[in-house]
Amino acid sequence: MKTLNQIQILHTIDDIRRFVKQHRADGRSIGLVPTMGSLHEGHLALARQAKQQCDIAVMSIFVNPLQFGPAEDFDRYPRNLENDAKLAETAQVDAIFAPSVREMYPNQQFTYVDVELLTENLCGASRPGHFRGVTTVVSKLFHIVLPDKAFFGQKDAQQLRVIQQMTEDLNMPVEIVPCPIVREPDGLAMSSRNVFLSPEERKQALSLFRSLQEAEMLYRSGERSAQAILNHVAAIIKQQPLADIDYIKIVDAKTLSDVQTIEQKALLALAVRFGQTRLIDNTFLD
Amino acid sequence: MKTLNQIQILHTIDDIRRFVKQHRADGRSIGLVPTMGSLHEGHLALARQAKQQCDIAVMSIFVNPLQFGPAEDFDRYPRNLENDAKLAETAQVDAIFAPSVREMYPNQQFTYVDVELLTENLCGASRPGHFRGVTTVVSKLFHIVLPDKAFFGQKDAQQLRVIQQMTEDLNMPVEIVPCPIVREPDGLAMSSRNVFLSPEERKQALSLFRSLQEAEMLYRSGERSAQAILNHVAAIIKQQPLADIDYIKIVDAKTLSDVQTIEQKALLALAVRFGQTRLIDNTFLD
Repeated sequence: MKTLNQIQILHTIDDIRRFVKQHRADGRSIGLVPTMGSLHEGHLALARQAKQQCDIAVMSIFVNPLQFGPAEDFDRYPRNLENDAKLAETAQVDAIFAPSVREMYPNQQFTYVDVELLTENLCGASRPGHFRGVTTVVSKLFHIVLPDKAFFGQKDAQQLRVIQQMTEDLNMPVEIVPCPIVREPDGLAMSSRNVFLSPEERKQALSLFRSLQEAEMLYRSGERSAQAILNHVAAIIKQQPLADIDYIKIVDAKTLSDVQTIEQKALLALAVRFGQTRLIDNTFLD
Repeated sequence: MKTLNQIQILHTIDDIRRFVKQHRADGRSIGLVPTMGSLHEGHLALARQAKQQCDIAVMSIFVNPLQFGPAEDFDRYPRNLENDAKLAETAQVDAIFAPSVREMYPNQQFTYVDVELLTENLCGASRPGHFRGVTTVVSKLFHIVLPDKAFFGQKDAQQLRVIQQMTEDLNMPVEIVPCPIVREPDGLAMSSRNVFLSPEERKQALSLFRSLQEAEMLYRSGERSAQAILNHVAAIIKQQPLADIDYIKIVDAKTLSDVQTIEQKALLALAVRFGQTRLIDNTFLD
């Protein structure tokens, strides 16, 4: 049926609830891909995964003010719904839920979902309040869309881990499906913020992926000292004059707390600024 | 059908989910009455209301450790599941969900639902962490049972207000139905903790309801000064030698912040200790 394949763009909570309810009544499963728009191949891979595992793929596009700090890039975060809709349609997305800030936060917000400990290290340390904003809006989206499964990229490794924990702790009836990082042909992790990079910054940003690959090699060759690996990674990135390191850390993949010696699955995660643009990337050491 | 009327007692999340799913598949609506057991007429009134408004009434019975402070009465809180089941059956409850602490909190809990501001005054001031425990467990129960409606007593006025706000802020797909306070024939508000009162404490505890009635009369006669009404209420209660006032407050019914002059719907709420037993009661001034 052609009508099922035509993408719907819904702006209100009532409309998306009606859309989902109808498909549920017809026995279809729902997959949700929460995004902030400015779609790239990483998002589209999530959408294709949703469409593969569920009957109906809903993508939310909402630049959530609650997860941006006062000095962060909420205002300049790229927005382009028209183009996003075209891209989402190529990935067989059935509906886009694109609410306004007013639709999502009509009144003063009193209620927050807080995940403790897991949000203290890595990006949580650099971006106070960021994860509270993420978990709160994702809770809202889950309650609005009521998906069977929700799809999150491994690039935001801490976000994924935090959302998995939230879902488990609060018994949310949704399965979190992690999806691998999607990279440009030259290795740069896809990000909506990559458009801000100057050609020179873009070139120097390749050091992130290169440093992660070297870390993996060190690990595979038997190195288990976190500090030794971190020193190596930092040295590579510091060779780039435009790179301003926010953090480079090796943490336990489950607790996200720093490890000295890698004895079980660990996450090597980093955040580096190039000019005004903050990039993150990571890999598992396992 | 007899089988529909026989109460089921379910101890695991899987079992209650299966129970609810079956009824949903058959097109029935679900009402949830969250309790800590030791049922009295107040709880049963909630259950009857649930049964009146929904096809299926589920009552949860769970003494939630997360909402008790370290110096509070978690250990001595009365528990009597067998008797509770008999009482619930008389109110046509279809299923009791009575999980163990281990079932609800199998691992370290990282995630909490926090409602700010509304939880700072009244019982929130006397019981730090209490409402975080309430909102977190109620979120869990909502996600487990997925009720259409949930029923809460007006006796815990702040709890009701906090849960209404949480539901609204997080777009939870459940309607919160407030139910009036149920009182003993002599006016004492029903509470599971009333069993702890000695005959003399029980007698002196009547001053709570009496003072609320006098406050209502003052208000109806035109008094709008919160302090004047509070002084009168306090004077009545202080006549009882065993009464130890925790708080007596007049607050805005919506924001729960103190008011000086009553200009819109206000809540007169009090908490008073008799021996080791802390009682609460309230009335609206409207």
